[in-house]
Amino acid sequence: MTDIYPSRIETTPQLIDRVDPVVHGPGTPGPLTAAQIEAYDRLGYLAVPSLVSADEVAAIDAALDAWTRDGAVRGLSEAITEPSSGALRSIFRVHDLHPTFHGLAADARLRDAARQILGSDVYIHQSRVNLKPGFSGRDFYWHSDFETWHVEDGMPRMRALSVSIALTQNYHVNGPLMLIAGSHRLYVACVGRTPADHYKASLKKQEYGVPDPDSLRTLVERGGIDAPIGPPGTAVFFDCNTMHGSNSNITPYPRKNAFFVYNSVENRLLDPFCGLSPRPEYIATRTGIPVPAHR
Amino acid sequence: MTDIYPSRIETTPQLIDRVDPVVHGPGTPGPLTAAQIEAYDRLGYLAVPSLVSADEVAAIDAALDAWTRDGAVRGLSEAITEPSSGALRSIFRVHDLHPTFHGLAADARLRDAARQILGSDVYIHQSRVNLKPGFSGRDFYWHSDFETWHVEDGMPRMRALSVSIALTQNYHVNGPLMLIAGSHRLYVACVGRTPADHYKASLKKQEYGVPDPDSLRTLVERGGIDAPIGPPGTAVFFDCNTMHGSNSNITPYPRKNAFFVYNSVENRLLDPFCGLSPRPEYIATRTGIPVPAHR
Repeated sequence: MTDIYPSRIETTPQLIDRVDPVVHGPGTPGPLTAAQIEAYDRLGYLAVPSLVSADEVAAIDAALDAWTRDGAVRGLSEAITEPSSGALRSIFRVHDLHPTFHGLAADARLRDAARQILGSDVYIHQSRVNLKPGFSGRDFYWHSDFETWHVEDGMPRMRALSVSIALTQNYHVNGPLMLIAGSHRLYVACVGRTPADHYKASLKKQEYGVPDPDSLRTLVERGGIDAPIGPPGTAVFFDCNTMHGSNSNITPYPRKNAFFVYNSVENRLLDPFCGLSPRPEYIATRTGIPVPAHR
Repeated sequence: MTDIYPSRIETTPQLIDRVDPVVHGPGTPGPLTAAQIEAYDRLGYLAVPSLVSADEVAAIDAALDAWTRDGAVRGLSEAITEPSSGALRSIFRVHDLHPTFHGLAADARLRDAARQILGSDVYIHQSRVNLKPGFSGRDFYWHSDFETWHVEDGMPRMRALSVSIALTQNYHVNGPLMLIAGSHRLYVACVGRTPADHYKASLKKQEYGVPDPDSLRTLVERGGIDAPIGPPGTAVFFDCNTMHGSNSNITPYPRKNAFFVYNSVENRLLDPFCGLSPRPEYIATRTGIPVPAHR
């Protein structure tokens, strides 16, 4: 089988044109307007301020606080801590681990929007909460999620998207998600072979699948950088190949969000394209069932 | 002699009221308007978009590029490099080392504004250019310059100010200078004794004179965080005790600025309040002459 999105193979970086559509099966009904769909298609992302109400966010946040205060969560393999401080940074597979996030993943505002863009039934490829603490939130370098999901997880095509739901206010100054507009149209093939068990370190600091400066400069010159800000409950939908990252956060304002990756059921994982063993289920599931309309 | 601004002595942090005025000898003539002086007094900083014209910035930047392309500058003790990449990060004492910055320090728009605020003749306590490169610009944690200048350099009173001249566009996303409005009214006494020769590491990563999270939270709740953005040539004047810092910069946009600290000639350095030897002249001069009106 020919790999149409090869990466970490050549010794020089490449910019490859995207083969797949961004909006699949146009006409699938859903909550997004035609203008929202058009913007998503063109930019590779769509920010929706206050998609989730302040009251709902308060309830989600309270549930999360109660859960993370329980020391047991730190013992899970799904829990990722900061290399230096040991502070809890992310928890994976939250849609399976906690009823609040189970419900949020099935919420029509997220799930039906994902179906509308991906043109099929969807399942949760990955979910997590990110707890970027105040004062010491580290930066997260530019990356295309698809590059990693393709190479390390065997995701065959670009038919997945992420939704980030802000649980805290996103300011300009607290390290908000940055996206390069239009970057979803080009695939940056990176250099360097993937080592085995790379994921254990890569969740803390990325060293493989890192795009080169020249490719990044090209993408930024074409589309510019956007960093949607907004109140808690603001959603950002973005394509699996949209280049994104975030700066550090020395402010006292934490940056927390819940994060769901929806993949088309017609885009199930194959063997990883790097030839290594698959990553664990909690990072890239191979057994996900379609998210039902109501649970 | 009683130390009215003790720091790095007690084992718990303290918030101490400022004793000194912010605008000294009001009525000193100068280029700033009454409204600008009032804002500076109240907030502890003043941003002036395009204080220096685009043409002037282009000439300054060209001179700086030519200078730093010359490998010799890296060999100077005044040159500071990034711990990880080895990239040039700052050059100190630029007002003495290069005619372009010599001229800029004496420019009436800077020098006379400093005289107007400080109410006396002024000399350059410290100068530098900061070259925060694209892709890998590190964050710089919150600090009051005065805390360090007082403890490590023996600056007796709060009668100094900094002017930062942006040589590149300041965006929200490329790690702009952040200031806590109104923080100049409170002095955060920090914990931890200063080790000898601290400055060699502190120019790369600060470990002493670091304000505690509770004090920072208090300051931010009182005044909020501002991060002036603007075109090249934008100036930010800020008081020596204004709490400031910056997040990292993963964007391709470098963040370069020229930086001059003006101190009142009536506020000359004493022995360091920490009891250690003075830091080098290029960091804190004891021999600075008043900046003349024209050179």
